[in-house]
Amino acid sequence: MSLSHLGEFQLIDRLAGVLPQSVVHGLLLGIGDDAAAWRPTADAVTVATADTLVQGVHFDLATTSWTDLGWKALAENVSDVAAMGCQPRYALIALALPDDVDPSDVEALYGGIRECAEAHGCAVVGGDVVAAPIILISVALIGESWARTADNGEEPPLLTRSAARSGDLLAVTGPLGASAAGLRLLGSTTDRREIAPELAKALVNAHVRPIPRVAAGQALVESGVRCAIDISDGLIGDVGHICERSGVSAEIDPERVPVHQAVRATFPEDALELALTGGEDYELVCAGPKEAIARATEVLDASGEPALTVIGTVVPRETGPLVKVRGADGNPLLFGQLGYQHFAANGKS
Amino acid sequence: MSLSHLGEFQLIDRLAGVLPQSVVHGLLLGIGDDAAAWRPTADAVTVATADTLVQGVHFDLATTSWTDLGWKALAENVSDVAAMGCQPRYALIALALPDDVDPSDVEALYGGIRECAEAHGCAVVGGDVVAAPIILISVALIGESWARTADNGEEPPLLTRSAARSGDLLAVTGPLGASAAGLRLLGSTTDRREIAPELAKALVNAHVRPIPRVAAGQALVESGVRCAIDISDGLIGDVGHICERSGVSAEIDPERVPVHQAVRATFPEDALELALTGGEDYELVCAGPKEAIARATEVLDASGEPALTVIGTVVPRETGPLVKVRGADGNPLLFGQLGYQHFAANGKS
Repeated sequence: MSLSHLGEFQLIDRLAGVLPQSVVHGLLLGIGDDAAAWRPTADAVTVATADTLVQGVHFDLATTSWTDLGWKALAENVSDVAAMGCQPRYALIALALPDDVDPSDVEALYGGIRECAEAHGCAVVGGDVVAAPIILISVALIGESWARTADNGEEPPLLTRSAARSGDLLAVTGPLGASAAGLRLLGSTTDRREIAPELAKALVNAHVRPIPRVAAGQALVESGVRCAIDISDGLIGDVGHICERSGVSAEIDPERVPVHQAVRATFPEDALELALTGGEDYELVCAGPKEAIARATEVLDASGEPALTVIGTVVPRETGPLVKVRGADGNPLLFGQLGYQHFAANGKS
Repeated sequence: MSLSHLGEFQLIDRLAGVLPQSVVHGLLLGIGDDAAAWRPTADAVTVATADTLVQGVHFDLATTSWTDLGWKALAENVSDVAAMGCQPRYALIALALPDDVDPSDVEALYGGIRECAEAHGCAVVGGDVVAAPIILISVALIGESWARTADNGEEPPLLTRSAARSGDLLAVTGPLGASAAGLRLLGSTTDRREIAPELAKALVNAHVRPIPRVAAGQALVESGVRCAIDISDGLIGDVGHICERSGVSAEIDPERVPVHQAVRATFPEDALELALTGGEDYELVCAGPKEAIARATEVLDASGEPALTVIGTVVPRETGPLVKVRGADGNPLLFGQLGYQHFAANGKS
């Protein structure tokens, strides 16, 4: 058997089985959420996450600049910390490079990492540079809970994948589909020539310079929301991760899903599918009681952040697909691509 | 210009220049030591480090088992945390794998990681698995200071590279050279056939299953030592890192360097050179006042840890090589290999 028969998520389950989580000092959350979490002292919560970009798999330097690559490598991790409702703080960069790379390109990469770090209140504090036949960037990012709370037995103020409850509303922090549309443009000069330059720029920018929702994560936690994930695999796939971990199912109303304007203008026929399955938008999708979602909506409106949009509901665990997207006639819509995973044939789950 | 003209350490200096360290919340140490360090709260110190192993560069699956590879990938990082005088706690594993790898091999890798984690009081709490054309393992490890001290303006209880002072003694936590001798045996079936199997096993084991010196790091800190580094690049190279960061020079007495018995027995002619320059022993080399080194020696003797051996002295910064190894006639000995660095021609600095 090879990894291509198993798929990424099943492999991670098997590996998690090899590693008992129970013995760990102060651990709140281990493998299986956007980040691990623990209490370094009784009045603090620390989170940590790691994400890797591989040349030819996650990026192509023919279409992505070194600076944008640096931004994105850190931004992905910032997004995971945002999806925990935490503040990113300390980053470690592990960099593998062929020895014919120009040092000024590596400096440009670090320039992009620095820009992203300064924009989100964190800093690169260490790492490792090694020789390798391909370019690979692995970032580990450590964050802190916004809210300092004593360990008084209450749930720590975090957003997790496992806290969705039947009856909760599902909501997203901003419009979707732009990153996947940008990726499509990067792969096709034909498509790119046919659309207005400012639209193309907006879409490509959404793909190469995603903006993680750190302030939105904070607003969600402060408003009493306790469940969220960032949209990296695609809305349906990521809501599926919430359902798996929370033991629930979800229904999404496609009419309410905020599709990015530039996506509607550029790919009108595929716009909804790009928004539902495209991935890498790095918006947050959350689940919470109606009142908590309403409070968060008010906070985000007042702060000038993108609006929170309710897109569906959490329901008891049902048979069939964990996440149902119901059309206007009440019947489920089906999509070919339900989120990206590594090793699976063509990367589709 | 390419990286092969620049070398690893000069590249890291250039990259550190791109990243200002001054703005970071609570940071005690940034880029340039065995680990970064910060205060998550006023009464705690956290350290974090990252190290990467690349197939064909750092390991060869023809001679290393998946389980040993897992052990070593984590052990390298545990050693960095030990070299800070801290307790390893939470590990993140970023794994890049070709899709034809057998999942049971990946489980064996994680089995080795788990063994090393359990042996040293830490746990894998998260990570990332991605598809890639080569195998690469990047570990980020977060540790805690042994000693809980308030932020009262005093230096935190850490071992750093920058704390060596002229007049300090240099000491190592155990015998050297076995890992490099083991690597030589792995690369040569001829050498291996000519020596006793139990010697070969001891040397190869030192290379594939190094034992990081976590308890020794604690004993050093408790005894008042404040400067150490783990021996990964080779004794001369790593003492050189201490000298650079501390603004001093060092003199090593080759007669006092503890050469591993199996190395003397197997490669009598090269034994001293292997001990001085071989690398990957993951013993600690420290610098401290005579009294602190004497206290640490007593603590380690009493606890059954390998003995601390004084091997030289720290002297004011001199011209010429930062680290001088003086022969019996008082003249410096010269060695061709002064520690490993990536990208440099043949990996020699």
